[in-house]
Amino acid sequence: MTRQLTVNTRRQGLHEITAEVAAVVRAAGATDGLCTVMVQHTSASLIIQENADPSARHDLEAWLHRLVPEDDPLYTHVAEGPDDMPSHLKAALTATTLSIPIVEGRLGLGRWQGIYLWEHRHHGSARQVLVHISA
Amino acid sequence: MTRQLTVNTRRQGLHEITAEVAAVVRAAGATDGLCTVMVQHTSASLIIQENADPSARHDLEAWLHRLVPEDDPLYTHVAEGPDDMPSHLKAALTATTLSIPIVEGRLGLGRWQGIYLWEHRHHGSARQVLVHISA
Amino acid sequence: MTRQLTVNTRRQGLHEITAEVAAVVRAAGATDGLCTVMVQHTSASLIIQENADPSARHDLEAWLHRLVPEDDPLYTHVAEGPDDMPSHLKAALTATTLSIPIVEGRLGLGRWQGIYLWEHRHHGSARQVLVHISA
Repeated sequence: MTRQLTVNTRRQGLHEITAEVAAVVRAAGATDGLCTVMVQHTSASLIIQENADPSARHDLEAWLHRLVPEDDPLYTHVAEGPDDMPSHLKAALTATTLSIPIVEGRLGLGRWQGIYLWEHRHHGSARQVLVHISA
Repeated sequence: MTRQLTVNTRRQGLHEITAEVAAVVRAAGATDGLCTVMVQHTSASLIIQENADPSARHDLEAWLHRLVPEDDPLYTHVAEGPDDMPSHLKAALTATTLSIPIVEGRLGLGRWQGIYLWEHRHHGSARQVLVHISA
Repeated sequence: MTRQLTVNTRRQGLHEITAEVAAVVRAAGATDGLCTVMVQHTSASLIIQENADPSARHDLEAWLHRLVPEDDPLYTHVAEGPDDMPSHLKAALTATTLSIPIVEGRLGLGRWQGIYLWEHRHHGSARQVLVHISA
């Protein structure tokens, strides 16, 4: 079973989608299985990260910005704006697909783990995410 | 069902394998399922990236070269040549396994997404890739 | 079928878990299938890397330390110690989930590939890893 979620990202950064993915798992009704999440874009990515203290997410965003700045003279792929090539690089360094075991009908995440869509463009948009459940 | 693909890489860089993976999906005949791709090497990796403008792939390669240069005095693992340790590092920063939902008999990739094997050694070689289909 | 492994990490760095994961595969008795491994923490991660020469693993650890140092003035998430925010960043750059095809009853790893849990905290702890087998 596969469902397509639309995540409306209005700004650059981490957007938690744990509840949306968990709802697909509940709807599938599987007690044991595997939940695979895939983002259908190359300028956004996925990550499982700390869902408690927002400062950890802030630092993740700030650190990756510093590692992959805009306006780097190395870039030749600049037609779509100064935040486009950094977006592809940030996506390459994080994840496009994640697979999470389903345990007793629930996502087998650790206590402090959340699933995030990481929007790398400034303006954001309607991002498509596939959620596949195998029982 | 698992098939082993051999990808002959003759140079460093991104080699698109979308068509080869899609052919395994078609041969499996699954309308709904999951396609998992794994590269059986530690000096090559996988990535889902933009399949449209080649300049994006060029910049990905150039940026990662600059982040992980050869001849870094930090390296102690140098017996297999100056491009060997950078290869392991580049593989560590990208992906070894990817799982892509199968939707209506086809890979559920976004419009601009392609699957790439990233060869990190200069000379290239016959790289083995496993493609597993679960229905 | 999902099993939870406890990996006792007593120090920062790469801890091989190939044998533990392979034991779950054997116990499941599947000849063909998919083995998904997930770490339930955000300050430790997973990686498939070279299992032969220990110098490659040493350089992986040293290189990532240099890329993500402690005591970076950028960090605001510092309440849990100087190695906490670097741990989240290192986890973000490597993998939280891996999916490995099962071929003829065994993990379909390449000859030089091992599965590692990467402990990013200095002190280590009892890390929980889920191993899911789908047949």
